[in-house]
Amino acid sequence: MDADIGNALATEAEPGVSEESLERLDDRVRRVHDRIERGIDDREFGYASLALPADADPGAIREAVAGFDPEAVLTVGIGGSALGAETVTAALGLEGHHTLDNVDPAETARLLETLPLERTLLNVVSRSGTTAETLANFLVVREAMASAGVDWTERTVVTTGDAGPLADLAAAHDLPTCRVPEGVPGRFSALSAVGLLPAAALGGDVEGVLSGGADGRAALSPSLFDCPAYAYGAVAYALEQRGATTNAVIPYAEALEPFAEWFAQLWAESLGKDGLGQTPARALGATDQHSQLQLYRAGRRDKLVTLLRPRERPDRAIPEPDVEDLSYLGGSSLGGLIDAEFEATEASLAVSGVPNVRLEVDRLDAESVGRLLYDVEAACVLAGELLGVPTFTQPAVEWGKRAARGLLGDDTEEAAAATEKTTLRVD
Amino acid sequence: MDADIGNALATEAEPGVSEESLERLDDRVRRVHDRIERGIDDREFGYASLALPADADPGAIREAVAGFDPEAVLTVGIGGSALGAETVTAALGLEGHHTLDNVDPAETARLLETLPLERTLLNVVSRSGTTAETLANFLVVREAMASAGVDWTERTVVTTGDAGPLADLAAAHDLPTCRVPEGVPGRFSALSAVGLLPAAALGGDVEGVLSGGADGRAALSPSLFDCPAYAYGAVAYALEQRGATTNAVIPYAEALEPFAEWFAQLWAESLGKDGLGQTPARALGATDQHSQLQLYRAGRRDKLVTLLRPRERPDRAIPEPDVEDLSYLGGSSLGGLIDAEFEATEASLAVSGVPNVRLEVDRLDAESVGRLLYDVEAACVLAGELLGVPTFTQPAVEWGKRAARGLLGDDTEEAAAATEKTTLRVD
Repeated sequence: MDADIGNALATEAEPGVSEESLERLDDRVRRVHDRIERGIDDREFGYASLALPADADPGAIREAVAGFDPEAVLTVGIGGSALGAETVTAALGLEGHHTLDNVDPAETARLLETLPLERTLLNVVSRSGTTAETLANFLVVREAMASAGVDWTERTVVTTGDAGPLADLAAAHDLPTCRVPEGVPGRFSALSAVGLLPAAALGGDVEGVLSGGADGRAALSPSLFDCPAYAYGAVAYALEQRGATTNAVIPYAEALEPFAEWFAQLWAESLGKDGLGQTPARALGATDQHSQLQLYRAGRRDKLVTLLRPRERPDRAIPEPDVEDLSYLGGSSLGGLIDAEFEATEASLAVSGVPNVRLEVDRLDAESVGRLLYDVEAACVLAGELLGVPTFTQPAVEWGKRAARGLLGDDTEEAAAATEKTTLRVD
Repeated sequence: MDADIGNALATEAEPGVSEESLERLDDRVRRVHDRIERGIDDREFGYASLALPADADPGAIREAVAGFDPEAVLTVGIGGSALGAETVTAALGLEGHHTLDNVDPAETARLLETLPLERTLLNVVSRSGTTAETLANFLVVREAMASAGVDWTERTVVTTGDAGPLADLAAAHDLPTCRVPEGVPGRFSALSAVGLLPAAALGGDVEGVLSGGADGRAALSPSLFDCPAYAYGAVAYALEQRGATTNAVIPYAEALEPFAEWFAQLWAESLGKDGLGQTPARALGATDQHSQLQLYRAGRRDKLVTLLRPRERPDRAIPEPDVEDLSYLGGSSLGGLIDAEFEATEASLAVSGVPNVRLEVDRLDAESVGRLLYDVEAACVLAGELLGVPTFTQPAVEWGKRAARGLLGDDTEEAAAATEKTTLRVD
């Protein structure tokens, strides 16, 4: 990943960061880099995520999916147990990966009706083995397979922690099993079996993805001016401090749409603490120029816009138009058009003084995708250190989980609070 | 649509709006309502959108698609020319609607490879008939149909304005044509041929959708305490004034995921002006509880969370678990679980003092979907009036369009600015 932070400088944008402030910030980056390096070396909780390119075992992933050769992979997981895997398969252009990451009965029914269950690999992912949504869907899919005469024990792989109901189940039925890595929060687990197993099952180059991650690891260095991941993380932090409390992420490639969701989880759950943290706003280029750009240019000055694209992509010529008004499209291509729109949007933000950063990868291949995921994780870890928040925990989601359990009949305190809603209803 | 604004009151949330302030605001709502009614009656630019339930002609839409009986509909359009149609077909559970609303060569190629072109209805939508992305894709799809031996003139319907290249083309080839309604910006056109034609082609009940819209029209009334659309629009406005500069919209139904995108366009493009306007953050329940909830509960206090659900839905029982830890799931259903999570999330925001609003529809049928779209449009128009911005224009997107044209070879001033980028590149 390369980062161009020119349009985030105070000479260009408001809010913006001056070159002098960046120099000062670089002193902090140097110290934080030392902290991160130590965390990686010692495999400390969370920091261990940035060691995954070395620690993940692609052989074990390949072994778990060996012999399946599925037409479709159905991942049953939620949050960090699903988004990384979706991001990797989509970015690599691998067809056939479906995800059950919600408990919407209509969506579950739709998927079960359309998937060829006898040719589907069921991939169940939950560190604890007790995630309510995941286990509920797993029970439903098992039953549907049984009804269709498919032996689910022959079509299921499990990725889970050392112990828990899913680990027990896998042992009881001798299911191929991968381990959720120790010390790695779900949202940082894309470069492990959690994120890579579906890609491996669909013929993706998971070694290439890890090799790209290793390039990112090798590129971490003490100065933001030498390290694109830190340049991006430091600028996002500096701009948040100066009022850019929203980070609008716009990949210019449909295959990176799940990446924007993955980014949104990474950023929100890692940095949204103690009244701090940028709100990620997901968008897609060029489509959302016709949706969000008005706001980004003319709305509140509280946004950093992150533009992302592959520098090269397979292209398709636009046939010669038979209408004079459109003659400027003649001789161009869809790729030429999307690139022109990328640059035009970047410039239109710049002339309005809206801070923006350009991130680029060479192309959407395994190495570049691995590098991108690693670099954005490293940027997030750096931003968390600079903000001073506990990047790797997510305490604020626990209350709701206990309340939901209680509403379903378990005896929890939170359920009582949930039933005492203040109402002012208009109908 | 019903609105429950209890959790946005100042007694419950920070920021929040006091009941006294709401009473005062209601005086302004009364005056704004008069203004809106006058605009609707006179079919003034923009306000004419709220007359669509009466003005749209479902017979003309049905006539345009009569005789096609397609296996798939491919809508080629972008922004308001695509999002409404996607929203309606998804919410009604109609399968087979695909959209080309980007100029990503890989996505265009993928769609052309997978669609059965001889059984596909090509639906081209552009008011001006000159939208670059739409016309480029149309040229590509036409060529692909020709290569596949399909006569595109037999498989194409056009929705466009009175004049322009698409209108000329439709006349030259005698294509079935619908009119983009006068005085209705694209993002407000869901309840016209723009939003309804694909649903009609796939057997959807477009009369029912319009009937739901008419219910919304009939429910507009001078007090926010009697009108859910105004209650929502007024509270969103009041909270924005008090610091909730982000509006996180979370439908609890996969079929409403495009609705969240449609909402994001409506809100951003209508209200993002003069340094004002809430930033829409799209999410999906229950999935994004595992992604965004940490931030919403513990991050900056700059968010209104809008929770939306159907009160009834087709359900699916969760099979009895064989694991004690999960026994609380036994006897429940996926629908029961998603509802418990909805209420738990709402309560978890409330106990943290994060303002939230509950929007509900009876179920995802044609009438409720039409009512929902109408009410949210009316809420947006009210919010725009209260903010004092020109709700129905989008001037800030024009600069980028001219720059993109220039970068493709047309001679425009903006292209020169776009090539003079300030660079600080880290790689």
